[in-house]
Amino acid sequence: MDITIAIDAMGGDHGPHVTIPAVLHAIRHDSQLSIILVGPRDVLEAELAANKAEAGPRLRIHHASEIVAMDESPQSALKNKKDSSMRVAINLVKSGEANACVSAGNTGALMATARFVLKTLPGIDRPAIAGILPTQKGKVYMLDLGANADCTPEHLLQFAIMGAMLVSCVEHKERPTVGLLNIGSEDIKGNEVVKQAGELLRASHLNFYGNIEGNDIYKGTTDVVVCDGFVGNVALKTSEGLAQMVNRFLTQEFKRNWLTKMTALMAMPVLKAFKRRLDHRRYNGATFLGLRGVVVKSHGGADSLAFQYAIRAAAEESRNGVLERITEQLEIEHLQPQLASQEIK
Amino acid sequence: MDITIAIDAMGGDHGPHVTIPAVLHAIRHDSQLSIILVGPRDVLEAELAANKAEAGPRLRIHHASEIVAMDESPQSALKNKKDSSMRVAINLVKSGEANACVSAGNTGALMATARFVLKTLPGIDRPAIAGILPTQKGKVYMLDLGANADCTPEHLLQFAIMGAMLVSCVEHKERPTVGLLNIGSEDIKGNEVVKQAGELLRASHLNFYGNIEGNDIYKGTTDVVVCDGFVGNVALKTSEGLAQMVNRFLTQEFKRNWLTKMTALMAMPVLKAFKRRLDHRRYNGATFLGLRGVVVKSHGGADSLAFQYAIRAAAEESRNGVLERITEQLEIEHLQPQLASQEIK
Repeated sequence: MDITIAIDAMGGDHGPHVTIPAVLHAIRHDSQLSIILVGPRDVLEAELAANKAEAGPRLRIHHASEIVAMDESPQSALKNKKDSSMRVAINLVKSGEANACVSAGNTGALMATARFVLKTLPGIDRPAIAGILPTQKGKVYMLDLGANADCTPEHLLQFAIMGAMLVSCVEHKERPTVGLLNIGSEDIKGNEVVKQAGELLRASHLNFYGNIEGNDIYKGTTDVVVCDGFVGNVALKTSEGLAQMVNRFLTQEFKRNWLTKMTALMAMPVLKAFKRRLDHRRYNGATFLGLRGVVVKSHGGADSLAFQYAIRAAAEESRNGVLERITEQLEIEHLQPQLASQEIK
Repeated sequence: MDITIAIDAMGGDHGPHVTIPAVLHAIRHDSQLSIILVGPRDVLEAELAANKAEAGPRLRIHHASEIVAMDESPQSALKNKKDSSMRVAINLVKSGEANACVSAGNTGALMATARFVLKTLPGIDRPAIAGILPTQKGKVYMLDLGANADCTPEHLLQFAIMGAMLVSCVEHKERPTVGLLNIGSEDIKGNEVVKQAGELLRASHLNFYGNIEGNDIYKGTTDVVVCDGFVGNVALKTSEGLAQMVNRFLTQEFKRNWLTKMTALMAMPVLKAFKRRLDHRRYNGATFLGLRGVVVKSHGGADSLAFQYAIRAAAEESRNGVLERITEQLEIEHLQPQLASQEIK
C-alpha cells in the first residue's frame, strides 16, 4: 500500500546528517513508500547532494524556514515556531498530504504541537507515548512513557485500548494480552488509581491479563504494559541507567589487564552477538497514540539505522490503520460517540 | 559497642539452614555482637548441632512455637501468630532485650507486625522500606521500595529525612545528597505530589540535590533517592527483570556452540569479576525506617552470605544510633514535639 511520510529532517541531535541517509535507505527498501523531507530547502538539497541523491517524485522537499531547538520549551515552539520543520511536518499529516510524520525533535515540543494541530481522537482524553522494549520472549509495547504524569483510571483504560490496538495492527496479534503495571499480582494491591483502573480493565473487552510487576516487563509476560507516564518514564530511564552501568562494568573488567584484554578479543563475536540482542536502535520509534494522525518520535540521539526503524514504525502503523482500529475498539467499549470514526481521515 | 540482635531464625525460603550458618559466621567476625535466635527450640538446637555449634552467652535461643508462612497475609500473621518467630523477635526489640531484629520472612507480615508492635517514631506518619543498590560510583540508598503505594508530599519529606540520616550514620557522610525521583530535572516537572515534595525539600535543612531521573539511580548522582513506594517498587523490580534478561542473554550467547563455550571457559575469570560487582547478595538487607526500633528485612531467597549482610546492616544501624539521628533531624525540621526524642528507647 502506497503511503507518504513527512520527515522533520532537522530534528534530533544530528539533523539531516542522520535523517537523510535514513530516508534514502528507507525508500530504496520500500518501493511503496514516498517521503516528504521538511526543512530549509538549501540545507536539505546540500545534504542530498552530499549523499549523491536528489529530490524526485518519491522524495520531495517541503520548505520550512525554522527549527525547534532540542531544549526549547513546548510553549515557545508552539507560539514562535509556526514555520518550523516539526510543525510543518505535522501540518502535512493534518492536511492529508502525508499519512504519518516522524521527528527526532524534542519530545515536549513535538507532543504539544501534535496535540495542538491534530487534536485527540474522539473518546481519548490525552495522547500517550508508546515504546517498544526487548524481552526474554521478544518484545513488549509499553505506555505511557512520560506524556502524562497524573492519570485517572479512565486514562489508563484508554492507554490499554490504544496499546492493544497498536500491537494488534503492527504485530498482527488477534487479541494481545494487556498487563497493568502494579506492585503485586492481587487485585487489592497498588495505589488507588491503579486499583480502579484494574476494575475498568476487568470489565472491558480487552484481553486483560491482570496486574503485573516490574520484572514482568522484561520477562515478556504480556504483549502490552500499561502505566501512568510518571511510572513508565521512571521504569524506562532506570532501565537505561542499569544497562549503561552493566555495559561499563563489563567493559572495565575486560580492560583490566593484558590477559583480560586478550580474552576480550577472543570473546568479541560473543559479546557483539549479546549486544546486538539488546541494541536499543532496533527499538527506536516511540508512537504518540491517541492523536488524529500517526506521529512517531525517534530518539534525539538516534543514528541513521535507528532512525530507519522509526520510519518503518510509522509506515507500519499507517498501513495497518491503527487509528481506525483504536476508534473501533473505543466504540466497542462505549467510550465514544457512534459516528465519530467517520470524522477521522 | 556491644549489641544484641534478635534473629527470626525461621523466616525466608530456607529458614534455619540459612539463618544459622550466617549467624555463626557473624558472631565469629564481630566480637561485640550477641545474637538471640528466635524459633522452635528443638529445631534450632538440631540445626546448631548440625553446624557443630551450640548455644552460649553470645548465642542464646528464645523459643517461639509458630512460624509465619511466606504467603501468609499480614492480617492473618497479626491475628493468629502471636507466638511466631517473627513476632517474638520484634517483641525482643520492643522490650529492649535486643537492639535490632532481622527477618527474611514475608515483607507484608513483617511490616504490619513491626508497625503494630513498635509503632512509628514521633513525627513519622508511615515507615518506609530503604534498600541499597549498586551504582557506577558505589552505592545508593533508595526509599520507599514498596511499603506505601499512595504518598503525600509530607511523606516524601519524611522519607528524605530518614534516608539522609541512615546514610549519614551508616556511611559516615556528613551531609548526604538527596535526590527526588522525577521525570525531568526542572522544578515544574512531575506529578502534583512530587512537585509539592520538591518545594518541601527545598525549604528543608537537608542537602537536597533536586530532581533526578531514573538513570541517575545507577549513575550514583546522589547518596539517597526518594520516591513513593509504588514508583520505588516498580523501579526495583524492573531492574531485577532487566538484570535477569541480560544475564540470560549473555549465558545463551556463550552457550551457543562449542566455540563460544570454549570462549566462555577462557572468559570465566572476567565474567566472574563482572558478576561479583553486581552481586545482589552484597546489597541484601532492606531497612524498615521510621519505627521505634531497628528492623532489617532480608530477601526471602537469601543465602547464608546474603543473610550475613542483612545482620551486618542491622548491627551498623544500631551502633550508629540511626533512630536518634532521625529524631534529631525531625526536630530541626520542626516535624515533631521537642521532647519526643526522650521517649525513644
